[in-house]
Amino acid sequence: MSDTDPTAQPTPVLTSEILLKHWLGHRRLTRRVIRAFPEEALFKHRIPGMRPFGVIVHELNVFLPLVVEGAATGEWRWPAGDEDAPSGKAELLTKFDAATRTLETLLQTVPAPRFLEVDHPMGNREEPVVATLLYFLDNEVHHRGQGYAYLRQLGVEPPAFYQR
Amino acid sequence: MSDTDPTAQPTPVLTSEILLKHWLGHRRLTRRVIRAFPEEALFKHRIPGMRPFGVIVHELNVFLPLVVEGAATGEWRWPAGDEDAPSGKAELLTKFDAATRTLETLLQTVPAPRFLEVDHPMGNREEPVVATLLYFLDNEVHHRGQGYAYLRQLGVEPPAFYQR
Repeated sequence: MSDTDPTAQPTPVLTSEILLKHWLGHRRLTRRVIRAFPEEALFKHRIPGMRPFGVIVHELNVFLPLVVEGAATGEWRWPAGDEDAPSGKAELLTKFDAATRTLETLLQTVPAPRFLEVDHPMGNREEPVVATLLYFLDNEVHHRGQGYAYLRQLGVEPPAFYQR
Repeated sequence: MSDTDPTAQPTPVLTSEILLKHWLGHRRLTRRVIRAFPEEALFKHRIPGMRPFGVIVHELNVFLPLVVEGAATGEWRWPAGDEDAPSGKAELLTKFDAATRTLETLLQTVPAPRFLEVDHPMGNREEPVVATLLYFLDNEVHHRGQGYAYLRQLGVEPPAFYQR
């Protein structure tokens, strides 16, 4: 590919394969954090002004499939907020695993050029599709960090951050 | 670029410009979180088993320039852990801003093909340079999530996650 080729694309600094591998590593870590919670604390323990970790993970479970579907299809749908919350850890993990499977299956169907397309996923946001994907990946990391704080409060040693 | 061109590169799903813009947005949010802390709590308030947010940010400040230098040069250096910690919010912010400037300046010097090179940044880690960069970006998001929890405990409304 010549430097002067007018049809040349920017050199990739990320591939969808590396992004998926990276994201699945985060999913494995988040799953370990969910599992580390005592059952009774998962939907109960919280810091005032924040939600219990189980409620947060439920929101992540609802959003992730919609985000990846929007990336794949260009049709962005967002939850109404009235989805039934799981009542326990087992059901939360089942839905978490289903969301992970959707991520793994659908992300591989997104044509590579689609990631750099500027889209309007929500409200007045205007950004490349990859930025929307990273936003929701970061959102999971952000909330998981809060989960670490909860675990420490509960006297539970959280999983190692570097282990994926 | 033909599908059958053996020299074809994978279609980029991220450019270094988008990555830098994304990262600088996170830096702005982290800076707002630091500023939101009451001065006396920044280096003192903590959950047992965790460090005060000021100490965590000091670590981020020490690591970030080394990470970006490693990405740029292939020479990975890591802190000895004995760097003098700032004593107050102003000094912490000064060093935070210096680290952000290093990120902004150096990331733009990294040749695009370097991001996909498999390197050995630390210990037995073997991964594309972009994965190492994302690891440390994620590390900041993770710890900032803990900062949000501290702020809530202190009765301070944290900055909006979506504002960058």
